[in-house]
Amino acid sequence: MKLLTKDSPKQSINNVMVGEGVKIYDFVNLYGCSIDDGSKIGTFVEIQRGASIGKNCKISSHTFICEGVKILDGVFVGHNVSFINDKYPKAVNSDGSMQTDADWEMVETLIGNQVSIGTSATILCGLTIGDGATIGAGSVVTKDVPPGAVVAGNPAKILSSKAY
Amino acid sequence: MKLLTKDSPKQSINNVMVGEGVKIYDFVNLYGCSIDDGSKIGTFVEIQRGASIGKNCKISSHTFICEGVKILDGVFVGHNVSFINDKYPKAVNSDGSMQTDADWEMVETLIGNQVSIGTSATILCGLTIGDGATIGAGSVVTKDVPPGAVVAGNPAKILSSKAY
Amino acid sequence: MKLLTKDSPKQSINNVMVGEGVKIYDFVNLYGCSIDDGSKIGTFVEIQRGASIGKNCKISSHTFICEGVKILDGVFVGHNVSFINDKYPKAVNSDGSMQTDADWEMVETLIGNQVSIGTSATILCGLTIGDGATIGAGSVVTKDVPPGAVVAGNPAKILSSKAY
Repeated sequence: MKLLTKDSPKQSINNVMVGEGVKIYDFVNLYGCSIDDGSKIGTFVEIQRGASIGKNCKISSHTFICEGVKILDGVFVGHNVSFINDKYPKAVNSDGSMQTDADWEMVETLIGNQVSIGTSATILCGLTIGDGATIGAGSVVTKDVPPGAVVAGNPAKILSSKAY
Repeated sequence: MKLLTKDSPKQSINNVMVGEGVKIYDFVNLYGCSIDDGSKIGTFVEIQRGASIGKNCKISSHTFICEGVKILDGVFVGHNVSFINDKYPKAVNSDGSMQTDADWEMVETLIGNQVSIGTSATILCGLTIGDGATIGAGSVVTKDVPPGAVVAGNPAKILSSKAY
Repeated sequence: MKLLTKDSPKQSINNVMVGEGVKIYDFVNLYGCSIDDGSKIGTFVEIQRGASIGKNCKISSHTFICEGVKILDGVFVGHNVSFINDKYPKAVNSDGSMQTDADWEMVETLIGNQVSIGTSATILCGLTIGDGATIGAGSVVTKDVPPGAVVAGNPAKILSSKAY
């Protein structure tokens, strides 16, 4: 892994740890995250500080990966997928003052190996998605997903399970 | 507030009224709107003509705010949130000719003070979201939301209410 | 139709067949697709190789149109709409090796004339959306939609039908 910073018209890449053979497309905003060997990052993707992407992952266009999200190896993340790291997001405190990092508790999420996350899925925070799980397109995932399970819907429910 | 126009490789900003301390990130398309003091506009955001953002709001990445949307002060808008201003959008008239502004009735939406709109929410048009309301991630909001209420789901339903 | 390739700071357009009067906005990634006369392509849109857009269509901001999607004439595609072309997307094979085109079967989708697809809708693959159908905002469409029908929800259900 090497540290990459690049500010070109189509890419904002700032202090990103990048492995071998990583491919990054146009119109991306990546900062302070890590992307391991062989992974691909699509167009219109933002990945925040502290997020980590494992080896051989595919992060598709229009997806947002926030601080506190750890994605293991061989994960497919569809288009337009969003992660969350704050249970009660607010712009301001009750006195109307702008919130700062001190007013906010980050809640982490773990995505296991070889998970497949369908397009337009939304993954709430504080969750573990088990190895080999499949999340249907358009799902809103509000609970942990066991390894090998298939979930879909809003809120997402388990459609099938298999040993993994 | 001052009028800002800026056409740089990473920002298309055209005739936007901007208050003190506004922060605008990369890859944005903003035109003819207003953004009041202290508000932040994330990456991959489009805000259309006539939309207004109050003071100390946070508009997160990948969000689309259309003409006819008025957002008051201290509002959190999550990532990948979309607003709507047309009940029956069409590309063409029944004779196949392209629609123009004359074929379209704009329907307005009001977002109250200190509302929190979760990531990936979709807000239909003609609605009022009351002060202090919370909209869960992934919700599709089809009705007015009372002040202080918490809603979630597709279509969004009230989960709890409190005086506000 | 003429072949257009343009690599400017705000547009990545590569080998796109473009008709008369087509309008393409900023921050787009378009390659190997075709866009017929009079159609408009919004900001933050990606359209992949082999996708085709008919005449007088409106493709709104933040929308993703993948290979295998054929959109006929006069279609409205809202903001943040996503299409899909793979029933079981994976990043890697079961042995952990990265998938290639040989490991993947593309599943096509057809969008009929004068269809209206609401904002934030997700259209699964292998579907036919009949002429004049309306898909509500935030829908996740998992089945064919008959001509003239109105559908909404996750999964989308038929709300009304009319002869078309």
